[in-house]
Amino acid sequence: MAIERTRFEAATLRGFAARALEAVGVDADDARLVGEVLVASDLRGIESHGVARLEGFYVDRIRDGRIDPQAGATTLRETPTSLSVDANNGLGHPVGVRTMRRTIEKAQRAGCAIATVRRSNHFGIAGYYAMLALESDCIGVVSTNAGRLAAPTGGREPMLGTNPFAFAVPAEDGDSFVLDMATTTVALGKLEIAKRLGKPLQRGWAVDRDGNDTTDPDAGLLGALLPLGGFGTETGGHKGYGLGLLADLLCGVLAGGVFAPDMPDSRDLLKPGIVSHFLMAIRIDSFRPVADFKRDVSRSLRAFRESPPAPGFERVYTAGEPEMMRTKVHLRDGIGLDPIVVASLHSVAEKLGIDPPPPYVATAASLY
Amino acid sequence: MAIERTRFEAATLRGFAARALEAVGVDADDARLVGEVLVASDLRGIESHGVARLEGFYVDRIRDGRIDPQAGATTLRETPTSLSVDANNGLGHPVGVRTMRRTIEKAQRAGCAIATVRRSNHFGIAGYYAMLALESDCIGVVSTNAGRLAAPTGGREPMLGTNPFAFAVPAEDGDSFVLDMATTTVALGKLEIAKRLGKPLQRGWAVDRDGNDTTDPDAGLLGALLPLGGFGTETGGHKGYGLGLLADLLCGVLAGGVFAPDMPDSRDLLKPGIVSHFLMAIRIDSFRPVADFKRDVSRSLRAFRESPPAPGFERVYTAGEPEMMRTKVHLRDGIGLDPIVVASLHSVAEKLGIDPPPPYVATAASLY
Repeated sequence: MAIERTRFEAATLRGFAARALEAVGVDADDARLVGEVLVASDLRGIESHGVARLEGFYVDRIRDGRIDPQAGATTLRETPTSLSVDANNGLGHPVGVRTMRRTIEKAQRAGCAIATVRRSNHFGIAGYYAMLALESDCIGVVSTNAGRLAAPTGGREPMLGTNPFAFAVPAEDGDSFVLDMATTTVALGKLEIAKRLGKPLQRGWAVDRDGNDTTDPDAGLLGALLPLGGFGTETGGHKGYGLGLLADLLCGVLAGGVFAPDMPDSRDLLKPGIVSHFLMAIRIDSFRPVADFKRDVSRSLRAFRESPPAPGFERVYTAGEPEMMRTKVHLRDGIGLDPIVVASLHSVAEKLGIDPPPPYVATAASLY
Repeated sequence: MAIERTRFEAATLRGFAARALEAVGVDADDARLVGEVLVASDLRGIESHGVARLEGFYVDRIRDGRIDPQAGATTLRETPTSLSVDANNGLGHPVGVRTMRRTIEKAQRAGCAIATVRRSNHFGIAGYYAMLALESDCIGVVSTNAGRLAAPTGGREPMLGTNPFAFAVPAEDGDSFVLDMATTTVALGKLEIAKRLGKPLQRGWAVDRDGNDTTDPDAGLLGALLPLGGFGTETGGHKGYGLGLLADLLCGVLAGGVFAPDMPDSRDLLKPGIVSHFLMAIRIDSFRPVADFKRDVSRSLRAFRESPPAPGFERVYTAGEPEMMRTKVHLRDGIGLDPIVVASLHSVAEKLGIDPPPPYVATAASLY
């Protein structure tokens, strides 16, 4: 059964998100940055982190006072290679973009630079910030912590968020390697989809409340996600758990923000300003001429893309390649949004007394 | 059936490894560093990367001319935050230790620093080098590429090595978080053990020659390892694949060394000087006072260690904790070596006309 999606131009959605945020007191520049990051996510096909979250994660949280739309970020410490920022419970996207830009400038002068941001909020896809490094011929590394959802290996209690890491490495002609990965096997949304479809979970996705491996969506939703590598140590679950805790140490602890023992459960959405970010940029030509580096990255990516596929697979992709392909299609044909997301945008428009975003094509059959 | 292990003092094994390497033309300082890193691995219980490899990986390769025991490393480029080194096909351990020390010194002055090493050889456990940062109140990050063994997600050909990442973060009172992980689900040794025991592989460890998921040890050994996350994308195999390729880009490509398309198969041991390393140090007090940081890391580690275990698990461990516990036991009781490893050390002694290492206790029943 194909879902009837409505298509929108990227620019339309960007403008709508910005107008909505301005209507709740966000400055024009900040609102524009949030719209930019949200729609970049939709363009890449990561619907869960796009305009679908505009209402619940940002507009509503500003309206009920949980996020401060006027919070300016404060620089706590600064050196030629480092930046320690307090977001003062403002929106995560503007402080994320501005801090990553400052980090890249520092890396261009000093060779490498690292920033931490504390007391921030959900900033969308980590990959967006890592990719900002690409234009400046830098390698970008970004992580964030998040509300608790995942059990440590051998444990039963959710102790860590999906704590993603994103890495962006430039190649020739605008090509790149962009790995943007949660350190859990899957996001919570996958369990919700399985539940909706009445399907069992894959092993390695979740444990029940008592910490037992489970394939029951209800039990998993009441329990905890598993780290990348799955249950126990036999298939490397301790590695994903290690990466998740590393993210929390680099974000929460290094930033002087909230970290695991004090982090609330992700399903308790009441707590504001609990998120910390880690952002790093590395200047490539400290090591090799940029052109040589990019040529070799491109040669590597080509080798993987052209390597023989396994039975049942069309071909081998490199990290970020499917997202790049989807971005091209979405820029050409518009972004198809799920009816639930469209309804949420209309709800935002109604709440705020602004026009809803006009569709690109009134009703299009699913492109997916 | 318990294996009869022979116990040795760490200092005895260090001295023996150093004497053996000096006997094949390695300078005393370099030989001492190799012994130090190999025995650190045995102390941590990572037998596969310890003195077990002295004969096949180092002594024999120097004797037949594949590794140059007298190769001095060359600094190709240097800035206050970066270091690009050519190991000139020398041993990996001395260049690894010296380059990491220089990187840490740079980070102490500049805030953060990164080094690459090309044309190196197998340098043992990546964690050893990352841990050098701990004494200087820095965070250490180290990676290396390696001969091909692992298939990319959706592929059938081994394209990547086990390409580990190691991260070391200091805590209070000598405690630490040390995550040292291959980006494959398991190392090849796990398949060899399964074959020896006549046991099936776990799903997610390997594919056969055609790229099909397999639990047959023989098929897996002829095929390829799977990236962390296992087969396909459903349980996150593309994430482990992404991390493995990232390691190759940060090591092989950034160093200007050998990278995936040109990397030989790991089972073809004839090629020398093909390995590259990536080493990074981050000075903590650019962001926060070190004492505050370490206090919070300790509080975080405690929270995980004390979190309630799942059924079938004794307790929750943090990354590097089991290795720290094993080190204490091995320093007290000696390092128990497998008879095959003891035989290999005797073979080295005989080849080189030196005394074999005297055991700590003549023959001890297994402590394991």
